Parts: sequence; structure tokens; C-alpha cells
Amino acid sequence: MEKIKNNIKEILKYGSPIYVYDFDIINDRCINMYKFKEKLENKLKIDVNMHYSTKANNNPNILRIVKDNNLSVDAMSLYELHINKKIGFKSSKILYVCNNIDEEEMKEVYKNNVLICLDSISQVEMWGKLFPNTNIMIRINPGVLGVGHSKKVITSGKDTKFGIIRDDFDSLFETVKKYNLKIVGVHEHLGSLFLDDKIDDYINGVRTFLEIVDEYFKDISIIDLGGGFGVPYKELESDLDLEKLSDKLIDVLLPFVNKHQSIKEFKFEPGRYIPCEGGYLIGRVNSIKKLDDIYWIGTDIGMNQLVRPSMYDAYHNIEVLNESSDKIIANICGNICESGDILGKKRLINKPKVGDNIIVYNAGAYGYSMASNYTGRLRPAEVMIRDGKVFLIRKRETIEDLDKNIIFERIYKL
Amino acid sequence: MEKIKNNIKEILKYGSPIYVYDFDIINDRCINMYKFKEKLENKLKIDVNMHYSTKANNNPNILRIVKDNNLSVDAMSLYELHINKKIGFKSSKILYVCNNIDEEEMKEVYKNNVLICLDSISQVEMWGKLFPNTNIMIRINPGVLGVGHSKKVITSGKDTKFGIIRDDFDSLFETVKKYNLKIVGVHEHLGSLFLDDKIDDYINGVRTFLEIVDEYFKDISIIDLGGGFGVPYKELESDLDLEKLSDKLIDVLLPFVNKHQSIKEFKFEPGRYIPCEGGYLIGRVNSIKKLDDIYWIGTDIGMNQLVRPSMYDAYHNIEVLNESSDKIIANICGNICESGDILGKKRLINKPKVGDNIIVYNAGAYGYSMASNYTGRLRPAEVMIRDGKVFLIRKRETIEDLDKNIIFERIYKL
Repeated sequence: MEKIKNNIKEILKYGSPIYVYDFDIINDRCINMYKFKEKLENKLKIDVNMHYSTKANNNPNILRIVKDNNLSVDAMSLYELHINKKIGFKSSKILYVCNNIDEEEMKEVYKNNVLICLDSISQVEMWGKLFPNTNIMIRINPGVLGVGHSKKVITSGKDTKFGIIRDDFDSLFETVKKYNLKIVGVHEHLGSLFLDDKIDDYINGVRTFLEIVDEYFKDISIIDLGGGFGVPYKELESDLDLEKLSDKLIDVLLPFVNKHQSIKEFKFEPGRYIPCEGGYLIGRVNSIKKLDDIYWIGTDIGMNQLVRPSMYDAYHNIEVLNESSDKIIANICGNICESGDILGKKRLINKPKVGDNIIVYNAGAYGYSMASNYTGRLRPAEVMIRDGKVFLIRKRETIEDLDKNIIFERIYKL
Repeated sequence: MEKIKNNIKEILKYGSPIYVYDFDIINDRCINMYKFKEKLENKLKIDVNMHYSTKANNNPNILRIVKDNNLSVDAMSLYELHINKKIGFKSSKILYVCNNIDEEEMKEVYKNNVLICLDSISQVEMWGKLFPNTNIMIRINPGVLGVGHSKKVITSGKDTKFGIIRDDFDSLFETVKKYNLKIVGVHEHLGSLFLDDKIDDYINGVRTFLEIVDEYFKDISIIDLGGGFGVPYKELESDLDLEKLSDKLIDVLLPFVNKHQSIKEFKFEPGRYIPCEGGYLIGRVNSIKKLDDIYWIGTDIGMNQLVRPSMYDAYHNIEVLNESSDKIIANICGNICESGDILGKKRLINKPKVGDNIIVYNAGAYGYSMASNYTGRLRPAEVMIRDGKVFLIRKRETIEDLDKNIIFERIYKL
């Protein structure tokens, strides 16, 4: 926050709204992930790899912090694969975790020599036909087994498109055999955005997953426990206690590793955890009005720039960057002509003037990566602050960019 | 549907997924809007202008159909203004309907000599300072007056960011006077996606709005009744009865026009109505699985291509393009690694094979215009079918397009 304030002029040289990343915070989260990995490796005596989920934020200068901290990555599309390769991740550091892809995409993954994680028998069949005698990972859906915890934490049963259920394992093994594939690892995404109060549920999920592995996948070498490491969006929430999580994980994983000599590696897929808290979206107040007892603060941060509040009803802390001691209750909204274009409801904020800047917190994950050009609004620039300096890491879009792929020629005569 | 089938090979030359527009259907809807305009003009003896809301679909070849049918347009951002001008709309045919914009944007609108509709006193103040002695329109929020109909149809009271409420009219008039502005028109968006069953509510809304005009804006010349003309998304819904709507409107508007000689023009702002039903999103089945009693059909149409089902829980009819007589109940989903990435739930469809094409209906409005690059997926091509021929009207994005604005250089030394 101080860093933003100190550099606000330099930041806004690149326009408003703008995504700002604090190198130190993102780097710190990467260090935390590396320590987590090291601790597990020391206790389990096998490899542990943390694959940052590129979809959370694919800016190359964020991927580079991940790489400089010796972490790995997940790619979920050919573009993500391209950007990971471009930043220098070796194929062995990339895991392709995909859903419902086509043959062309599989061919590219194969060509890049990247391990693929497939999540339906149908996709295993497609891969097997193309590339028999190869290694694959598969994604399991343990939900129907009743990992009895909160709906938010597990992707369970009928209500998810992901993974292969136990009822279908026989059919899976047949398909695998038909093409002489080798299942080298199994994957499950056990949690999503979990914090301390859900650690026990997460651990229970891991336990259930390991029971499945124990029963059906005795000779695999990789177990991928997915992502889900949460961050506090609200002020009263606290950081995920990684010491507690790793201690509890070790208690469950160590006996499993001792029993199963084939296991050579655990993978985790943190996404949001790494860039979220180090990312801010800065905008400007363009309009202020009061309807009955509530203020409406109109800004240039539309739902096209940050869709999470409109889409998921997600909470992001918002502050007005002024020194006013006059506080008001306000709805903060954007500049898109749509009633759902609201950043935050009933927030206690410093009373702004038109022209004041506002800051939206925790915008580093699923911010720019989900941005659109809805109502013809341009996607903003991205900058990173490091050592007190502001670096442009993505230019603001231009009208020419939006025109680029359009065929303007008339297709018929009048 | 037949047109799509007959041209499917030609269409898919441009890749999958792909947006396909049927010229004839979109042209037909424009003709309907023109007839509506003509009928009202004949009865009311004043100008009626239909401003197509560019945000619904801003492809130039769709805007051109609008223009060729002598309709007008709305712009809500500088990009929309740019594209409207580029396609040849004269400034007098464009209305700038905006929300929470900044001074730079206002300067561009002024430079282009386009009438602006402002929706808060704060924005009137900003405009007045920049451009005193000019004409403006303003957007009214009649909601707190209790236009007692369904929440969906009106944007009412505290719960909307739009418009100026009656309590603030005195303050509005002071600001207008301060800068010697002239309010030439008033605007209200009375409905959204309304069909026949809501016509009476809409007419009641118009009546209330006219009462406000009668009381506070006696000398204006333009009344803008906004948009909201619905289209049937579900099979049992029927088209909006424009004859009935225009008849009922005439009953209300004619006495008003007769009473108020200053009124020279009515405006309407149809958006969705024009391109929605003539637009289709074609994709391909990449994966099929069954969890318990329900099939999951995995396609290449992710929530980044069409966000309405994920965002609004919107219903779009979906068909599998094959001749199978075997019907199944299925959830149809995309290729994005997110559990909300679902196109349709529990649909009765032809049983597909991997590789079959699917068609999503009513994708012409708020489809491409809301698309994103989430998870690094490229936005698709757009084609238009006319006279049995397929014309490319927007190229598919490339990896290079996504890279274009990125600064790849390392910002620090290792």
C-alpha cells in the first residue's frame, strides 16, 4: 500500500485502470512454496514439485518469479504452454492439466514432450490412439466415494465435469492396456481456496485419495494433490498456516511413502496463492452520487477489467487513496452499462472526490487473466514494482489491437 | 439450422469453436425495427430513431446491416464510437450512452460532435466544466417513484447505479444552469429482455416516465425509452409481438406528443433483439463421459467463448449436429479448468460421438462481445452466411495476438 502510494504518479503514467504487482510479495509467496516443498522433501525423502497454475496470472514477469524460485508450472492450454516455454521452463517442469481438449492440442503437447494429465476415459482413448506406448497421468474424481466435507472444498460426484470415478476404473484400465499406455501418476484437485479452518477437511480428502491410490494404482510414481491453497480476501481472515498444513500432510504422506516404494514424487498445484495478494487494481473515481442513504462511487474499473465481483460475487477489499477522515458507506461500481457492474457493495470508505484513485486488493489472481473487451473497453496495462521502481510488464491495449482481426470489407453490395 | 448444416465444412475451415451469423435473420430483425419506427412515426408525426446498442455485438459487418437498414446506434465507449464512425454512421446517428466516464472520454465524444447522455449530476458537472453552453441528454432513474413492476424489468431505486433520481432534480437543474447547458432529451432504460407477458409492465413504466417528463422536463425535444426488447431463448417462448407493443405505445405516446409540442423525437435502444437469434456458436465434442445417470459432454466451447451460462445462469438451446435417434440427458461443458464452465445442464440431446459438432443458439448477442482469453484460450473467428456463402468477418486470434502487448524482457538481474 505504501509502495503504491509512493509510486502512484509513475504507475498512472501507463493509464488508468492499471494492474500493479508487488514483486516482493509475489516472490515471498514463491519462497513460501519452495520452503513447503523442501520441508516435505526432507521428511518424505522423495521429490516434491510445486506447479504454479498459469491460469491464475500468465504474465511472463510473474512466471519468471516462479521460475527463479525453482518452482514448476501447470499449463491448461497451448497458449499457456507457449508462454511457459518462452519464459524458459523445461518440459520436465511443466504439467499439462487439461479438460476436453482435441487431437491437435494433444499433438502439440506430445511434440513438446510434456507430461499430460487426462481426465476422462474418452480423452485417454483419444490420446492412446494418437500416442500408444506413452506415459500419462490421470485425474481421479473421488467425490462419489463420499469424502464427506464441504462442497466448496471437494469437486464431488455428479456435479463436476472433472475426473474419472471409481466405477469406471475397470474401463479405464482396459483402455490403458489397449494402447499400452502407462499411468505414471494420478491427480486430484482436493480443495479450492481453503484456509486454516479447512485444513482438516483437506487432509481427510488426501487420506481418501490415498486409499484409492492404494487400492487401484499400486505401481504409480507420481501423486498430484492439486491446488487450492487459499488467501485471505477479507480483513478478518488470516493467512493459510503452511507449517500446520505441511505437518499434517507429512503425518499422512510419510506412512504412505514408506509402504509404497514406487512413489517417487508428490505434486501440488498452487495457483491463486502465488500472485493474488501481490496484485492490485488501481482505478479512478469518475462520478459520485447518493441514492437515498447510500453513495454510488462510479469508477473506471468495469467488470471487464475484474470480473470476479460480478461473476462470483467475490469480495475484494477496496480503498480510496486519499487522506480524508470523512467516512461513507458506498457501493463502488465501474463504467460498463450493465447493472451487475459492481466492484463492492456497502463498503466503508474514505469519502472520495472525483479524480481520486481507488485501489482494489487481491487482484493478482484471476484478474487480468479473466479480463475482456466487453462494451469495447480496452484491457489495462500491467506494471510491477521492484526495488522502488515501476516496470511496465504489459502495455495497455489500443483501439488498433481490437481492430486487428476484424474483416472490415463489406461482404455484399448494396 | 439448415444453412449451418449445409455450410458446416466451409464454416469449420476457420476453426472451432466459431461464431456464425445468419445475415437474413439479423437483417429481418433490422427490418422489424425499421417497420416499428415507421409505424410510430406515421402515427405520432414526429421522428422515431432506433439506436442499436453496439455492446450486444460490435462486429462491423453486423453494424453495417444496422446501417443499411437506416437504423441508428448507441456507443458506450470510445472503441464503440470508433467502430461506429468507421462503418460510416454519421455523428447525428450516434448516441453516446455512458456511465462513469472520465474527462478524456468526454473530450473525444465532444470532438466527434456526438450527443451525450449523462447519468449523474457528478458527470453533468464534469461535462459542464469542460463544455459549457452545450446540449446534453440525461438519464433518469424513476425507480424510487415506485413503477411497481418486476425487478427484472425496471432498474429501480437504490439497487442500480444508473440515472438521476427525482430528489436530485433541483440540484441537477442548478448544475445545468451553472454551465448554461441545455437538456435536450431524457433517457430511461425501462425494461430488459422483456417479452409479451411484460408489455403491460413496460407500458406502465413508460407512463410513469412520461409523468416525470411532464412535471420536470417540459421543454425537451427528445425522449429516449431505452432498450429491452426481448428474444425467446427457450423453445416455448414466442417472439415479442411488435404490433401489440407499438399499438400500446402509440396509445400512450400520442396524447403526450399532442400535449407537448416541444417533443420532436422518440428514441429506442434495441440491443439483443437485433443480432441475438441470428448468431450461433459452433463447437466440437472432445470428450464424453457418464457419471451415475448423467452424461457429461466435453466440448471446445469454454466459458471464455460464451460467458452467459456461467455468469448469468443463462439458458441457450444446444443441439448436437448428427442424425442419431438415440437421445440422452447430458450436461454440456467446455474446456476450461473451472467447475462453473458449463454450457447447459440436463439437456435432452442426440447422443454424440467424439468429433461431432454442436450448435449453441441465440449466441449473436453478448457472445463474442463478452469473450475473454481466460486460461489462455484464443477467441474464435466470426463468419457470416449470406446467399449461401460463408464470409469470414473476424479472424481467429493467434498466440502472437496474445503476446503482442507483453513486455518479455526480464526486469531484474538474477
